[in-house]
Amino acid sequence: MKVVTCIAPVNIAVIKYWGKSDEDLIIPINDSLSGTLSMDTMCAKTTIIASPELQENIFWLNGKEQSFDNKRLANCLQEVKQIADKSLPHLNWKLSIKSENNFPTAAGLASSAAGYACMVTALAKLYEIKGDVSYIARMGSGSACRSMYGGWVLWCKGSSSDGKDSIAKQIAPAAHWPEMRVIVLVVNDEKKKYSSTDAMKRSVQTSELLKHRANHVVPKMVKACIEAIKKKDFETFAEITMKESNSFHAICQDTYPPCVYLNDTSHTIIAAVHAYNEFKSANKVAYTFDAGPNAVLYLLESSVDEFISVINYVLPPMDNNGDYYKGLPVSPSQLSQKLKMALNASIQKPGGLKYIIHTKIGEGPKLLSEPQEHLL
Amino acid sequence: MKVVTCIAPVNIAVIKYWGKSDEDLIIPINDSLSGTLSMDTMCAKTTIIASPELQENIFWLNGKEQSFDNKRLANCLQEVKQIADKSLPHLNWKLSIKSENNFPTAAGLASSAAGYACMVTALAKLYEIKGDVSYIARMGSGSACRSMYGGWVLWCKGSSSDGKDSIAKQIAPAAHWPEMRVIVLVVNDEKKKYSSTDAMKRSVQTSELLKHRANHVVPKMVKACIEAIKKKDFETFAEITMKESNSFHAICQDTYPPCVYLNDTSHTIIAAVHAYNEFKSANKVAYTFDAGPNAVLYLLESSVDEFISVINYVLPPMDNNGDYYKGLPVSPSQLSQKLKMALNASIQKPGGLKYIIHTKIGEGPKLLSEPQEHLL
Repeated sequence: MKVVTCIAPVNIAVIKYWGKSDEDLIIPINDSLSGTLSMDTMCAKTTIIASPELQENIFWLNGKEQSFDNKRLANCLQEVKQIADKSLPHLNWKLSIKSENNFPTAAGLASSAAGYACMVTALAKLYEIKGDVSYIARMGSGSACRSMYGGWVLWCKGSSSDGKDSIAKQIAPAAHWPEMRVIVLVVNDEKKKYSSTDAMKRSVQTSELLKHRANHVVPKMVKACIEAIKKKDFETFAEITMKESNSFHAICQDTYPPCVYLNDTSHTIIAAVHAYNEFKSANKVAYTFDAGPNAVLYLLESSVDEFISVINYVLPPMDNNGDYYKGLPVSPSQLSQKLKMALNASIQKPGGLKYIIHTKIGEGPKLLSEPQEHLL
Repeated sequence: MKVVTCIAPVNIAVIKYWGKSDEDLIIPINDSLSGTLSMDTMCAKTTIIASPELQENIFWLNGKEQSFDNKRLANCLQEVKQIADKSLPHLNWKLSIKSENNFPTAAGLASSAAGYACMVTALAKLYEIKGDVSYIARMGSGSACRSMYGGWVLWCKGSSSDGKDSIAKQIAPAAHWPEMRVIVLVVNDEKKKYSSTDAMKRSVQTSELLKHRANHVVPKMVKACIEAIKKKDFETFAEITMKESNSFHAICQDTYPPCVYLNDTSHTIIAAVHAYNEFKSANKVAYTFDAGPNAVLYLLESSVDEFISVINYVLPPMDNNGDYYKGLPVSPSQLSQKLKMALNASIQKPGGLKYIIHTKIGEGPKLLSEPQEHLL
C-alpha cells in the first residue's frame, strides 16, 4: 500500500485567464499572472491511497463521494500515468482519493484550482514523477497550474496544439516581496452562481471585445506587471491589477447575454479603493475580482489596518459577528474625519460582507509525511 | 418684438455615442443611431423673445435662472447668428430664453438632448435659417443633434475638422414602424451621478477597449441596425440593441477608474428580458441603458402588457403608488405559472422602480404658434 498526502495553495490572478482556445485540453487564449496565497490561511489537502486490495477507485471531495468518471479528473490521471515509469508495481492499483479545502467553498475562491493542484501534486508524488507537471494540473482546472508554484506565477498560454507548453512558471518567489498582503472581502450574495466554464465559453463566442483584449491588451499588461513585481513597484502593480480586473469584467459585460459577477457591494469596494488611493495621492490598495462578487485586495503590510478600517466604515459588519476576521491578525483603528470625508461614501447597511480574510503570498504545494496528517 | 416657441423630443440611442474626438465642437468618435420618442409623453419646450427693449440676455431653465456665459449655449448662439442673414433687424437684440422639460430631469433621460434640440430649433426659426442645423444642436449637447428629426435617426460622426459634416440624418420616419413601443423603467437610485461628459473623456483617455469598439464594433452594428430598422426585423434589431448597450457599459467598466451606471436593479431587468425572450423563443423585448441605471425597453405593441406584468413580478411596485404608469395606457395582466417559473427570478423587494413610462416613436421638433403656448 502507498499513501501520499499533499497540500496546495489558492492563487489570485492579477492578470486574468478568460477564454479557452481548446476546451478539452484547457488551453487559454491569453497568458495570466497570479500571486500564490499562503497555505497557513487557506489550502487544499489531498490524501491518495493506492492499494492492490482496493476493489474500485473512490474519490471523496469535501466529505462527499464524487464520480471517478469526471472527465477532468480522468484526463489528469491518464496523463500522469502516461509519463510514469511503467515498471512501477502500483501503477495499476486502484486509488482512494480524499480531498478537502480548509476554507469554505462558498467563499468563491477558486477552490478547484487549489484542489487540482493538490491532486496532481499527490499523483505525481505517488507515481514518482519528476519535473514540471503544471500542464497536467491545467487539464483539471485551468488556473490550477498557477497553484503549482509559490510566489508570483505566470501561466504561459503556449503555442503547441497538445498543450504541453501551456505551463506555469515562477516569476518571483514568495520571499521576494515580503511586505505584500492579501485581503479577501467575502461578499454576502444570494444570487445563483453560473459556471465560469460556461460563461467563458459564451464570452469567446459572443464578445466582440474579447479578442482585442486577449491579443492586444493582455500581452502589454503581462509584460508591465512582471516588471512591476520584479521591481517591487507597488504603484504600477496596483494600477495594472485594477485595470486588468476592470478589463476582464468589461468582457463579461460585453458577453451576450452578459455575465455579471460584480454587484452593488463590489462596486462600493471599488469606489472605496479609488477614493482611498486618491486621498493618499498614491496607489495604496489594488482590487481584483474573479468570477464572483468577492473582492481580493493586494496591499502592503503598512496599509492593512487603515484600509480594514475604511472597509468597516463603508461596509459595517453586523453586530456580534465574532468570527469576522480570519487569517493573519488585524487591528482596525478609528478613521480620521478627513479620511471619512474623502471617502464620500454612500455607507452601506451592516452585513454586506460575510467575513474578511487577511493573508499573504506563500509557497507552492507541499508533501506532508507525518502519519497523523493523512486524510485517510 | 419677436417671439418663437418650439417643442423638441427626447431620443434613445440604440447605438450609443461615447467618446469625443473634439471636446469643444463635440465631434464623436463613432456614429450613433436612435429612436425619437413621441412628444405626447415627453418633450422640451423653449420660448425665445428677442426685443430691442431687453437690457441683457436672460436664460431660464426649468424655473431657474442660468448663466448666459455657458460655453455650449454661447457656441450654439454664435453659430446660428453666423449663418443668419446679417440684415435681419433683430439679429442684435437681446434675448430672453425660457426652457422647460415636461418630464422630471431626475428621470435621467438625456434632458439636455431635448433641451438643446429645442433651443437650436427656436433660434433657427427666430433668425429665419433654412436647412439642417443639427450640427449646431450637436455643439450644445452631442446627442441633441439626433433629437432634430423624428423617427429613426443616424448621427454621422463626419470627417471634417470643423464638425460641419457631423450631423443627424433621418433613416426612417416615425410612421415607418408604427407598432414600435418604448418603455422607460425609472430606477430608484440614491447614488450620486457623475457627469457623462467627464466619464466619456476618461473613457477616451483610459479604456484600452474603446478604440476597438469605435473603429471595429460600432460600424458593423450601425450598418446591421439600419438594415434591421428598414426591414422592420425586430429579432435582429433587438439583438443589436442589447449587444450594443452591453458593449457601451463594457467600455464604462474598462474605464479607469470605472464608471458604473448599472446597478443591481438594472441587472435584474437585464436578466428578466433575457429570460422572457428565451421563454418566447424569440427576441420580444430589447433593453438599452444610457449613462444611468434606468432601463429603456424597445418592444412591439403586442408585447407591452405581458412584459409590464413581468416587470411587476420581478420588481413589484410599492403599494398605493397611484402615479406609477405614465404615458400611453397599459393593462398588466396575471402571469402564467409557467412564465413565472421561466423567469427564475430572485424577486426584488417592492420599490425598485420609481415609475414606468410607456411611449412610442414620434416626430421631430415642432413650432408652436398659438399665443397661449408660449412660456413667456
